[in-house]
This record gives sequence, C-alpha cells and structure tokens, in this order.
Amino acid sequence: MKVDGKDIRPIWLHADRRTVQVIDQRLLPHEFVVADVNDVDATITIIQDMYVRGAPLIGATGAWGVYLAVLNAPDGRAENNYLEAECARLKAARPTAVNLEWGVDRVLGAVLAESQISQRPAAAAVEAEAVTEEEAENCRLIGVHGLPLIEQISRRKKGQPVNILTHCNAGWLACIEWGTATAPMYAAFDAGIRIHVWVDETRPLNQGSRLTAWELGKYGIAHTVIVDNAGGHLMQHGQVDMVITGTDRSTYTGDVANKIGTYLKALAARDNDIPFYVALPSSTFDWTLRDGVGEIPIEDRNPDEIRFIQGLAGKEVREVLVPPADSPAGNPAFDVTPARLVTGFITERGVCGANEAEILGLFPEKKSA
Amino acid sequence: MKVDGKDIRPIWLHADRRTVQVIDQRLLPHEFVVADVNDVDATITIIQDMYVRGAPLIGATGAWGVYLAVLNAPDGRAENNYLEAECARLKAARPTAVNLEWGVDRVLGAVLAESQISQRPAAAAVEAEAVTEEEAENCRLIGVHGLPLIEQISRRKKGQPVNILTHCNAGWLACIEWGTATAPMYAAFDAGIRIHVWVDETRPLNQGSRLTAWELGKYGIAHTVIVDNAGGHLMQHGQVDMVITGTDRSTYTGDVANKIGTYLKALAARDNDIPFYVALPSSTFDWTLRDGVGEIPIEDRNPDEIRFIQGLAGKEVREVLVPPADSPAGNPAFDVTPARLVTGFITERGVCGANEAEILGLFPEKKSA
Repeated sequence: MKVDGKDIRPIWLHADRRTVQVIDQRLLPHEFVVADVNDVDATITIIQDMYVRGAPLIGATGAWGVYLAVLNAPDGRAENNYLEAECARLKAARPTAVNLEWGVDRVLGAVLAESQISQRPAAAAVEAEAVTEEEAENCRLIGVHGLPLIEQISRRKKGQPVNILTHCNAGWLACIEWGTATAPMYAAFDAGIRIHVWVDETRPLNQGSRLTAWELGKYGIAHTVIVDNAGGHLMQHGQVDMVITGTDRSTYTGDVANKIGTYLKALAARDNDIPFYVALPSSTFDWTLRDGVGEIPIEDRNPDEIRFIQGLAGKEVREVLVPPADSPAGNPAFDVTPARLVTGFITERGVCGANEAEILGLFPEKKSA
Repeated sequence: MKVDGKDIRPIWLHADRRTVQVIDQRLLPHEFVVADVNDVDATITIIQDMYVRGAPLIGATGAWGVYLAVLNAPDGRAENNYLEAECARLKAARPTAVNLEWGVDRVLGAVLAESQISQRPAAAAVEAEAVTEEEAENCRLIGVHGLPLIEQISRRKKGQPVNILTHCNAGWLACIEWGTATAPMYAAFDAGIRIHVWVDETRPLNQGSRLTAWELGKYGIAHTVIVDNAGGHLMQHGQVDMVITGTDRSTYTGDVANKIGTYLKALAARDNDIPFYVALPSSTFDWTLRDGVGEIPIEDRNPDEIRFIQGLAGKEVREVLVPPADSPAGNPAFDVTPARLVTGFITERGVCGANEAEILGLFPEKKSA
C-alpha cells in the first residue's frame, strides 16, 4: 500500500536474503519502526509479542519463518526431522489464527518435496513468496467482491455516506495488501463511493484506534474512532449501515473466531437488522471444525495488556497503569460469533452465506477434508 | 463505607457549613484527593468534569448545589426568582441522569416552602441532608432485596463462587453508601456467600477498572478486571452467573439508560440465558417517559476522553494519546437497554419485572404522574 507516497507492506525479505523485515506494529501510530528477523526464535517472538498480528499476516510470517529455519539449519543441512520440529515450534506460537498452521505447512510441504537439501532454501523462498503474493491477491479479490455490497447501500442512500463499522484491524497491516475487512472499503473509496468508517478502538491492544485509524487516515478515508461500547447505541440510532470484520479462524459451518468483542457487535447488528459481514481469504477457514464456540482454541494473553495502556506522552511512547496495582485482570483475546449472527462471508471467490452448503459451494475442493 | 478503617462518603458538608467536599473521582485509584465546592459554578464544574458521577451522587450533589445557591444569594437574600434561575443552571449540568433534576427540585421545593428568607439556608441544609441520607438508606435496602437473588444462585452452585458481571461503577462512589449494583454484592459478601465479580473496565473513562475494582479490592471482594469486549465470551462459556448494573435513568416502562455498552451486555446475557438485573433507587426512575430509546437524552461528551487515557506512569498520573493525533473520535456516553432485555429491577422496595405494571405495582403513588 502507498503510505506517504511510498509503497510498503507489513513483511518483506531484505535484499540480503537472510533477513525478514516487518513493521513493528506495537509502536504504531506514534512510531514507525522496522524490525529484523533472522531465525525461528525471533519469528516466534514477533508473532507472540505481536510485532505482527492479523490472521493472513501471521500466516505469511509463519511461511517466512520456515524459510529462516531452512537457512539456519545445523551444518547448513535442512533435514526433514529438524524442519518438522522447527515448524511445530512455529505453529505453536499462537493458537487461534489457523493461517499460521496453513502458512507453515505450505512452505514445509514445498521444502520436503525438494529432495536435494542444497535446493531447499530456494524452494522455501519461492513458496513463502507465493503465500505472500497469494494473500495479497486474495485481499484484492475480497475488495472486488465486497464492493457491490457497499455500492448497493450507497444507491439506497442516494449517495449519502455509507457508515461501516469495523472491529480491530483487518487492514493491510493485518494482511499484505488491502486487508480483508478493509478491502471493500478501499475499493469503494477508489470507486468514488462516499463512505465513513466507525473504528472500534478494540481493547485491550487498541488495534482499531492505533492501526485501522492510521491506515484509513493515511488513505484519506473518513473515519471516527469510538469505544468498543458504542456500536450498539449507534446501530439503535440508524448510524451504522453495515458491519465488516475480519476473522482469525472460521469453521466451514460458518462460526467466526475474531478479536474479543466481535460477538457483541454481531448481536447488536442482529438486534437492529444491520448486515454483518466477515471478510476472509480461504486460508482462514478451518476445514476440520464444525463447532466454533466449542472447538476453536481461544488464547488467554498476559493480563498486563489490559492493565497497562500505551500511548504518546509528550514526545515519547509510554505506558500507564489504569486499575489499582493489586487488581487482577483476565485477557481472553478472541471470541466466537455463531454462524446464525453472520449475514455472509466475503472471500476471494465471492460472497456466500455463513453455512456449510454455501461455503463448500464456493470451495468445493475442500469437501473431502 | 469503611476504607482502610476510616468511614468515608463521596460527598459531605464541611464543619464550616459553607463548603461541600467531594472525593475527586477523576484521580482514583492512584490519588485520593478531596475537592472543595463553595458555589453553584463550582458545583456545575464538578458535575460536568466528573469529579462526581453516578446517578444518585449527581442527585445528592445537585441537592447540595441548591444549598450553596442559597448561601451565596445576593445580599444574603435567597429570593424565589434567583433560586429558580440557579436551579435551572444546576439541572442543565448533565442531561442523562434524572436524579440531578430530582435532587435539585426536592431541595428547591423545601426552600420555596420556607417563606422566611432568613430561614432558607437552614431549610436547604435539612433537605439536602435528607436527600443524601435517603439515598444511602435506599442503597442499603437495594442490598437487602438483591441478596436473595445471589443466595439462590449460590445454593444452586452448592457454594461455588457466584460470578457476577458489572459495568461501569454503580458502587458507593456513585451513590452515598453501598452503591446500587454493588449493594447486593456487599450484602452477599457480608453474609459469607462466595462471590467473584467480573469488572468491565468501562471505556472511555474506565470507571470499572479505576473505581469499581478499587472499591471491591478495599472491601476484600474477589474480582477480575476485563475489557468491555470480554463479557460475551465469558457468558458463552458459563463463566457469568448474573449481571447487575446501575442506571442513570430508567423509564417506568422498563427501558434502562446506563453507561455506554450496557446494551451490548444485555444482548449477550439474553443470548446466553443469563439473568440481567438493574439496581436503582426510585429517584432514578423517570415517571414521565415511555420510550427510553427514543426519548432519553444521551450526552455526547468530549472526544478527548476517548483519545487520551489516564493512568499511573511511574509515580505520577499522566495521560497518553492512543490514536493518531489527527483521527477524530465520537463519544456518546450512555446507551439505552430496551426493557425486553432486562430480567428485573432491584429497588429499595423490592425486586420487580421491567414493565409498567410491575414497576407501578411497587410504586403505586407514581401512577398519577
């Protein structure tokens, strides 16, 4: 994406071909810092500590992590046993986003298929690059397929701004280009449709107010930051025309794991007859799970993410403690929105209902899974 | 309430009888500061800037504001015209909590009934004191009537902790003693029932993590601070047995205005068959409105309350800016939960359903209103 006139992605391979570089998203919007990643341990750290986040980007990071595993193999020999162990470590970095497993396994598969050990680094790079480019292209297609949904509301409103609510950051920072939830917004904006985005700040890590607001602002899209509490009230008063979110893992039956609080917005959308769409590349579907609420693992993160809030104090980024120092906090990072509350999925192949028949209708090759 | 062994209330008349003193709740839990209030302008400031907040406390502050108006009357003569104008200013300080109007009008009525101008200061003090004491007693009675609801769940769970979720602060800091939503919790704790409270942090001003967590911690009640996004997930997974919130204004038909985000929790409670109770003294009922969503005025507050977050940085309380400096924010401060989502009201006269018949059944003297 163009930021201040420069093309930028959240992850790329440095020209030295030994270093993967990422934007350290923990410091945005107040500081723009690029971090170097040179081995599997560092890859796990940037995933766990959320330098990188968002399901597609976690998948691409996992893919590049396999490349780094290959490069750093003992004696320069990336043997199968070693690779499988390193990939297991990578896949365990975070539990909820299914793209991590998908990205790692794709590159691992390509590497194992290369029997000449000396050719494995090249094979890993090619496949990691392919994963990255495919996710970028998938996001572009999500924009293509999501655009008509916004156009339709715009026509109904006779060109008045379409108010779209989104939760967390499912923008290009979470993906590679365009984002998932934001792809239809960028497409609509580029098509000259008037839109306005309600940006849930998305506690505890404020990916909405820090990242989505930054992305949209840089692109020139009208937006307003709101607290996560506000969406229901806005919906009750006709100020939200549609909701679009991303997802970290969705079952092929239509249940949606996404950033904690998504379920509450879906309930409010349903209570006010507002369409609730989830945008995702097919890599975010879990083709093995039927019951999202019961089966998708929900990560419990460090309670200090709730207790301390980071922002700009004067000219430096600092953390402040909000609750009493001795009050405990609990930090489940995701929730699951049942399929019955989801109007539809926006995928790289088109829009479908949140049910097994329609999802497998779009992705028939997954039926055997 | 006892805090660190000392009896304390959020508002009181200083021994000089010319100064009303309040806890400056903006600085809790990190600093405990008492503010002096000597006239109507200062009373309006402490209400608008939220040194004091919470419907019953706003009512009591309004009551004491009338007393200060009387004391500061021109030439020491608290004439009717002057008093009515000052009371109109007081009542306009914040729009949503109906207790403000109620507290001001009660003291104004008592003062106007005193025909001897020289006796008006004494009449105002007596009535403001009466308002304050009645609200304290009402909260005690809310505890008495709410206790059996918790006891019943405790028995069903065979003494396992009863998990209660609350939003914002409807504790003694918001009232005078005991609080509204917290009164049944304090009563249960004092009765030896095991409880655990999920404390919504309550963005934007974090009254949950700053005030409710502080109150409960000081009393020794087990609690966990969560982000406002987390309640739905906890309810889906059987970790919430009941919800109790306060309210800033409820219609006699059962609609509940409360801190923004309450509606989302009520939706989640309904979706998971969890009882959702609202605790209030009768002073918080609006006996004139039928349609809460359509008719209760919702205050829009300064967007900087969202953009800047206050907490402890090292040893000093500081504010940090979270979103990009040029991203706008919107700050509706309350929402309305429709009666259909409310299991019942806990009042000083007992528990009733959220409908006109049951509410007027408890308060039959209001039928003519």
